[in-house]
Parts: sequence; structure tokens; C-alpha cells
Amino acid sequence: MKKNLRIRLLQLNAAVGDFDANLKTMIDELREAKLDGIDVLVAPELAISGYPPEDLLLRPALCGKLQHALNCLADAADGVTLCVGAPEYIEKSEKYGRAENESAGVTKLWNSLWVFEARAHVLSYHKQVLPNYQVFDERRYFLPGDSAQIHEVKGVKLGLLICEDVWVPEIVERTCLAGADLLLVINASPFSEHKYDERIAEVRDRALKNGLPIAYVNLVGGQDELVFDGGSFAISAQGDLVARARFFSPDKIDLEYSDGCLSGDRFEPAPLADELLYKALVLGVRDYFNKTGFSKAFLGLSGGIDSALTLAIAVDALGAKNVHAVMMPFLYTAEISLEDAREQAKVLGCEFSILSIDSVVHEFIEALDPFFLGHAVDSTEENLQSRCRGVLLMALANKTGALVLTTGNKSEMAVGYATLYGDMAGGFAVLKDVWKTRVYELSRYVNRDKKIIPERVITRPPSAELAPDQQDSDSLPPYDQLDPILSMYVEDDLTPSEIIAKGFTEGDVLRMCRLVDISEHKRRQSAVGPRTTSRGFGRDRRYPIANRWKF
Amino acid sequence: MKKNLRIRLLQLNAAVGDFDANLKTMIDELREAKLDGIDVLVAPELAISGYPPEDLLLRPALCGKLQHALNCLADAADGVTLCVGAPEYIEKSEKYGRAENESAGVTKLWNSLWVFEARAHVLSYHKQVLPNYQVFDERRYFLPGDSAQIHEVKGVKLGLLICEDVWVPEIVERTCLAGADLLLVINASPFSEHKYDERIAEVRDRALKNGLPIAYVNLVGGQDELVFDGGSFAISAQGDLVARARFFSPDKIDLEYSDGCLSGDRFEPAPLADELLYKALVLGVRDYFNKTGFSKAFLGLSGGIDSALTLAIAVDALGAKNVHAVMMPFLYTAEISLEDAREQAKVLGCEFSILSIDSVVHEFIEALDPFFLGHAVDSTEENLQSRCRGVLLMALANKTGALVLTTGNKSEMAVGYATLYGDMAGGFAVLKDVWKTRVYELSRYVNRDKKIIPERVITRPPSAELAPDQQDSDSLPPYDQLDPILSMYVEDDLTPSEIIAKGFTEGDVLRMCRLVDISEHKRRQSAVGPRTTSRGFGRDRRYPIANRWKF
Repeated sequence: MKKNLRIRLLQLNAAVGDFDANLKTMIDELREAKLDGIDVLVAPELAISGYPPEDLLLRPALCGKLQHALNCLADAADGVTLCVGAPEYIEKSEKYGRAENESAGVTKLWNSLWVFEARAHVLSYHKQVLPNYQVFDERRYFLPGDSAQIHEVKGVKLGLLICEDVWVPEIVERTCLAGADLLLVINASPFSEHKYDERIAEVRDRALKNGLPIAYVNLVGGQDELVFDGGSFAISAQGDLVARARFFSPDKIDLEYSDGCLSGDRFEPAPLADELLYKALVLGVRDYFNKTGFSKAFLGLSGGIDSALTLAIAVDALGAKNVHAVMMPFLYTAEISLEDAREQAKVLGCEFSILSIDSVVHEFIEALDPFFLGHAVDSTEENLQSRCRGVLLMALANKTGALVLTTGNKSEMAVGYATLYGDMAGGFAVLKDVWKTRVYELSRYVNRDKKIIPERVITRPPSAELAPDQQDSDSLPPYDQLDPILSMYVEDDLTPSEIIAKGFTEGDVLRMCRLVDISEHKRRQSAVGPRTTSRGFGRDRRYPIANRWKF
Repeated sequence: MKKNLRIRLLQLNAAVGDFDANLKTMIDELREAKLDGIDVLVAPELAISGYPPEDLLLRPALCGKLQHALNCLADAADGVTLCVGAPEYIEKSEKYGRAENESAGVTKLWNSLWVFEARAHVLSYHKQVLPNYQVFDERRYFLPGDSAQIHEVKGVKLGLLICEDVWVPEIVERTCLAGADLLLVINASPFSEHKYDERIAEVRDRALKNGLPIAYVNLVGGQDELVFDGGSFAISAQGDLVARARFFSPDKIDLEYSDGCLSGDRFEPAPLADELLYKALVLGVRDYFNKTGFSKAFLGLSGGIDSALTLAIAVDALGAKNVHAVMMPFLYTAEISLEDAREQAKVLGCEFSILSIDSVVHEFIEALDPFFLGHAVDSTEENLQSRCRGVLLMALANKTGALVLTTGNKSEMAVGYATLYGDMAGGFAVLKDVWKTRVYELSRYVNRDKKIIPERVITRPPSAELAPDQQDSDSLPPYDQLDPILSMYVEDDLTPSEIIAKGFTEGDVLRMCRLVDISEHKRRQSAVGPRTTSRGFGRDRRYPIANRWKF
């Protein structure tokens, strides 16, 4: 008898903590899937709670909410098999989080794939490989499962896996040996540059090694510093990509399994590198606003490239009518900065204001004068300008219920070339994980069809304009030198000597690495922003502030 | 033959990342121990790297530093057996931290107790229970050991354990069954209120159940948001405390093991609750400054109780000559606030300045006037005052190479009753984990012998003085209601209904819990501060900012 199965991959944007909304989506989709003659509906990892729910998982009240949602899903799974990710209580515990430990019984959850059909919960698979590195803290909440699980639908044996499981050849092999015809992998796999290619390479390797097709459904959406890129896909036993969903938006793709052969109804294109990164940032911004309940943004538009790119992203994420760019000139602001800022705001059609900081800065200088007597002018006066801008932007945002976007990039965040409570003031740091050299590339990408960022903004030498004739290169090596140094130190954990050996100037390398080490206190108070590299600041890089490490 | 052993517990303040200094201390102590006829010198968990080294553990360069230190220790351990905590490489790996997983070989360290004697490394014990909850992330770095270890010195069998191990009865029992005469436990156990009592109760239970004496050495010192309280101790097989080191300072105690009986040379008193908490805060401040290289502090002294207590702590931590209190009055500042601030600074002998924010606030209001037209006065204007103070304090600190202390308490941090970049501006948040009701109790403690905080500061109704006749009770329930509500919600994970059922007003409870949930973005950008409760904000409570949890 021919084995046939229709599978739908449901690429959802699930909101963290919103059990009701996530449940409703699932129930609506179940109804639609039944009408469409779908046999198996597959939703992402922890789609009921959103990912990552973090310490919400420690709240005992989660248990009731979860149980309610699961009961409703069981009721609704009628005529369609539903595979969906949700936490699973191993045993209720009042002691969760106390000064005890795993073996004494703190961790009481599995990260499970629940299978519902014929109006019942028929099976749970427990994630076996729990990531506890980079941004992941799954061992904080979950215990690992220890066995493969197969579920048979219409004679087809589905091997069940969750995210990290599929990155481990031995785990996949064990599931295949348990008799799977086809692997279903549910995921909450966050974006970073090049991650998609790695993901495909890993899954293709598993498909080829085991001679089985694999269906991979991913979450989509921004959640604090994470962006889930979607791009769910199916891969044949021969390692060919046979279907792919859209990137960066909710989507679903239908697959047909027929006697060992997997095919799909659609193959969406994958964006190239710049577009991919740009769209990740746009989604990061849009969802941060959506999910925290904001719609309007303010940002300081300086005439420099970071704020120019941030503005372009903000307008794409929120719409021009929701973005207000404010140019806040001072003595050191070049006339071309004003012109270029005005020009870009005009091209994008967003609101634009000019608000000089002259009078407030002078008033501060005057108030501080008795204390500053005998002290030379230094970066304090520069920070002061930056902080006056921060205060103005925050006041505008507070008064109108808007959120301030910060505009600093990863190179600045790394070396602390930013002012706490000044340009760092704001709710979301759009370019926090984008190196300055990538900022240039993305700005060129923004201008690919139409001049949105004035050419001069891209070509003029970068300057914070906080002192007369100041240029970034007064304090920092050129960015094409700086960024590789920083990337090797921050992302690849190379030592300064190893970096110098690659041909970089000793003085620059030592000074920059030292700046990274002593700027942790700034990063610790910075706004969250979308992680887009293999190691972002934030949850991904946990360094002590009080740190006497000497390289 | 009589079995006799002289053991020294070395309660160290090890600096994170400072391998050279930590090594030097250990070598000096080894020399001294030998002169004193000590048989076994016992130092805390990860005493070579400091605790917690966090992602420094992921740097490949750690390997060389560590190996050097261990070689030196082996050389130095001549005539004395040294038991000391340090990481141990299971296998060198270039791939550490990549998108892979434990079973695929990422985690390559043990958290080990190294034994050196006769100029050689003779044994390592690998910590079996790795805490990965609250502030702990040990699973991020370490793999658990899986067996008990005994080391025999002069015929006495020492059972080796590390910190969390001793909290698990089965683990302790296994070590005892392996033939231990005496248990040595090396620790990096951070302070929180009541933690010392829990610690003693656990260890006493292990001693009694297994009929063995236990020597427990703890780290001491502040490290970012952690304070290690020291208080190392020894407990007899009968469950009696037979020796105790000082709290909150480096110390050592000598123990004599003689045929099953453990005795000590000293028994230091344990401070009572208020003194204990106060000293923890003092050490937290002192070490944050020491270990980040600062000596001078600025803080805003408002005439309110939070800044008054913060000032007292700062002066005890840093010395009066290193603390500069600044009163920054505005229209709404009461005359008594000025008087009381001046009075306290005088009593403590620290520098005191008055710096009005009138002119800067008015200049901002004027600059913003065109934008604020048609908008009612709201909290924006209050935030503005607070931010002007933040800018002034930061300018003073930047200019003089000092650090700003923030003065907000845990109740405010919980409900977001604080201004980002305003009163939240600063490097260290002294009272971040101290509930307002505890702030009152600690202020009374400060005044126990001498009136340091003016009585009126303690007795007047609390006010932020950001609007005419403002009182905290306009926006918040009285603190004796608020604090239990918040503590139950934040620390105990109770639901609002459960809190209401305990007799609190429904409206207050719902409103306050909601405020906690929507203030995560503020806490995420707050300065670090010493954790003193069972659940502090910071690494201890990891909540999503974008969070649609409804209780």
C-alpha cells in the first residue's frame, strides 16, 4: 500500500507569555488545516509559551495556563495530528529555584514536542540536547529527555526532534534507528549572519547520512535581543532542498510525503547577505515595538551614518508616520550634518525637528563651573553634550508615549565609544550588533535603488562632532582595521598577540582590546538590540565588570 | 596509632581574572603554613580564577594562564598539602561556544578541587553538582564529575567536595561511603539574608547523618552583584560548630583533627541580621570600587532616607574623604531636605555641595516648549528634573575620575518608581536589593550608637520631591503593604490572587504586580548592585522585556 501524508509546517510568530493568543492561532490553524485536508500540522518549539520564556517558566502559575492550553489543543485536534512545542511538567514543585540542585529535584520541566490527535494527547517527545551556551539557558529550566520517539500517522513513522537535537549526529541516528520514515524537527533557532547556511548544512548532512527526508519548522519574529528568521524548509533524503517558507514573516508550507519521497508546494527565495541582515534588523525593531506595545519612535539624527541607517530601518519597521527624527545641533555640528539630516528625513517622509542643545549645554557648563575650575577640558564636556541630547529625546518620547531608538553600532559598543545616558539613552539599540564596516555596507544596500541616505553621509569621515574638528580616527584606528581586531577579540576569543600576528598594529590591538575589557559597565547598562552575529553583546557574552584579566 | 592533622582554612578575597595576584597570595600562604606546621591548607572554590569568572572561562588564553599557575602551585606545595579550587580542562577545544552542544563536545572544563603535595599535582576532584539556577550558570562552562574522591594525608582520609555538592545528601553520603574520615568542602557561596543559617543547617545535617566532621571554607569579597560573606567554619560529627572565621573580611582558621574529633583555634561571632546585611552592603561597595580601580564616589543626597543610608554605607566602605554628597534642590525640594542633607554630611565628615537644578531644568522646559504645547504636565517633567541631576552627578564624576552611586531601593526597582538616566544613573546601585522597609531598619541600625542619619529623614513621609507636595503614597501603597506584596510576587512567585488571599487590597496587588511586569526595561539598564535577598534583580531574575504574561 502506498504511504501518503500531507504535512503543513506552521511558521509562527508566537509572543512570549501570551498563552491565549498563541493558543487561538493554533486552534484557528487546526481548523484551516482540516479544511485543507492536511494530515499533520507542525508548529515550532515552545510555540505555546513563546521562546524564550525565561524565568516565566519558574512561576508556578504557568502550570495552570499551560494545562488549559494543552487541554484546548487536545479538544481541537480532530482529524488532524498536531505536533507542537510546549513545556511539560515532570512533577510539580514548590521548591523551584531554591538553593538546591538538579539531582535534588529543582528542574521539573521538559522542553517537549506534544502530539495531539483524535482529540487526545497521544505522545510527548522530550528534547534531548539542551543548549546552555551563547544566548541559551535551557539547563536552567529543563531536564533532558533520554530517548527517541516515533509517532505513526497513516502508516508513516515520524521521527520527532527539537532544534538542538538535529545538530547532534548521534541523536538523529538514534531516532532513525528507532524506525523513522521521515524526521520532523521543531525549532526556535535565532538568526545570526551565516546561521541559515550552517543550519542547512547540518540538516542536509543528517538527511544524507541517514537516508531520510527532514521537515524543519522554525519560529519567526523578534523577541528582545533575538530575531527568529523563519525560513522553514524541507530537505529530501538525497539532501535537496525541496520546499522553503519565507524569511522574516509568518508563513506556512505544505509538504507531501509519498513513499520515502518528500516534496513541497513552495520554494521561497532566500535573501542575500545584506538584505538578510537588513530584514533581520527591521523585524527586530518592529516586533520589539509590537510586543512591548509601542508604535512611535524618536531618534537623534546627527548627519552621521549610524543614525542615518537606523532611521531607514525604523521607517521600514514602523512606517514613516511613526518615526520622528530630531537633529540636535551644537557648536561642533557641521552645516552639512544639518543639511544631510534634513534631506534624508524629507526623502523618507518622516517627521523632522531641529532642537539646538546650545542653551542647555551652556547652562550646565555654567552650573558646573565652580567645580570644574582648575580642571582641563576633557571628555566630560563631550559627554555633557551627548547627555543633553539624551535628556531631550527622552523628554519628547516620554511626553508622547514613544520609544527612543539608540543609534550606536557594535564597534562603538565594543570599545565604549559611546556616552552612558547620552547617545546610549533609549529602549532599543538597533545596530548594537552591527560592526561599523557592516553599517557602511547596509547603507549602500539601503541606497540600492534610490538615494535614501545622502551620499555625503556615507563618504565623509566619521565624527561624533563633540569637539572642534573631531574625527573618529583621532581616538580609534580606521574602521577597516578596528573591526577585524574587535571581531577577533570579541567573537573569536583570540589573544592580542594572535591578532598582532595577523598583521595588525601592536599599539592599536593592545589599546583596543583593553578598551573592550574596561567598557563592560557601559554595555551592562545599554539597551537591548538584535543579535545578528555569532556573538552579540547582551545574554550572549557574559563578562564580569570587575575583571582583572590581563591578556 | 593516633591520627593527627593540622588543617588551615584560607578564607580569601580572590579577584576575578587576576591569576597572578591570586597565585601570589596562595604561594605566600603556603610558605606561612609550612612555617606554622600546617599539614593541609584549604582554599576556596575557583580561588585561582576568582568566582564567577563567567565567559573568561571561554577564552582559550585561559588555558596557558591556568597551567602556569598550577605548575607554580605544584612547585610551591612542599611540606604542606594544598587543596584549592581551579578550573580543569577536560580536553582543549577550539570550538568552545560554537552552535554545538555538550554531547558534541563544547563543554570542556571541570570545576575542580586540585590537590598538590610533595611538589606535585596528586589528585583532582571534579564538582558533581553544578548549580545552574538563580545567579549561577555553571552548566554553561563545566561538565559534572561523576565520582567521589578521597585523599589521604598522614593516615587521615579527606573526603573532597565543592560547594553545591554538600547540599545534596546522596553526594555527601557517597563520599563518606568511599571511606572519608573528615570532609573538606571548598566554596564560593554568595551571601543573601538567612543564607548563613541555611548553610549551617545543611552542613550540620550532613555531619550528623554521616557521623563525620566537616570543614567548610568560603570565599569572601564583592564581585559585581555578588557578595561572598566568608564565615568559614568547622562542624563536628555531633553537629557542633567548633570553629568560625570572620565575616566579610579575609581570614584563616586553624583546625586540629585528632582521631575523629575536629577542633578549631577560634570562634568569631556572627553578626545579627541588620549588621550582617549592612556589612554585606559595605563590602559590596568597597570591593566594587577596589576591583574596578575607583576610589572616589559621588552621590545625590536628597534629604530622603535612601540616599541617607547610601551615604552612610559609602562612607563606611570608602572613607569620608572619598565620598562627595551633592544636594541638587529644585522648586519642590523642602527646606528640611536641605537642612537634613547638610547635617548628615557634616556628621559623617564627607564633602558636601549644593548645586541647584533650577536653571538647567528651566532651560530644558523652554527648549521643549514648542513640542510640549497642548500636552498636559505629567511625569515627563518629573523625569526631566531627575535626569538633570543625573547629568550633573555624572559630569562631576567624569571630571574627577569618580564613580556615581545610585540610591534607589528594591521596592522602587521592582515597580519602576525611578527614572532611567536620572536617579538610576551611576555605576553601582547600593540598595538595589534592599526593600524599603529594610532601608528603614538599616537606618535605625546606622543610628544605633550615634545620630548619623537625622531623625527627621527617618520619620518624615517618603517623597521623591519631583512635584508640589508629592508623597510616595500618592502613587504607591504604604511600604509596609507594598513590600510584602512585591516580595511575594518577585521572590516567591505567588500569583496576585494568592497575595490577595493573604489579606492585601486587590487593586493594589494587581496594579503593583503589573508595574513589576512592565518595568523590566528599566531594570535591564540599571547599574549592578549587591544581591542580598533570595532573589535579586540582575542575573538572578531573567525576565523577558517583551512579555505578554497576564496573571
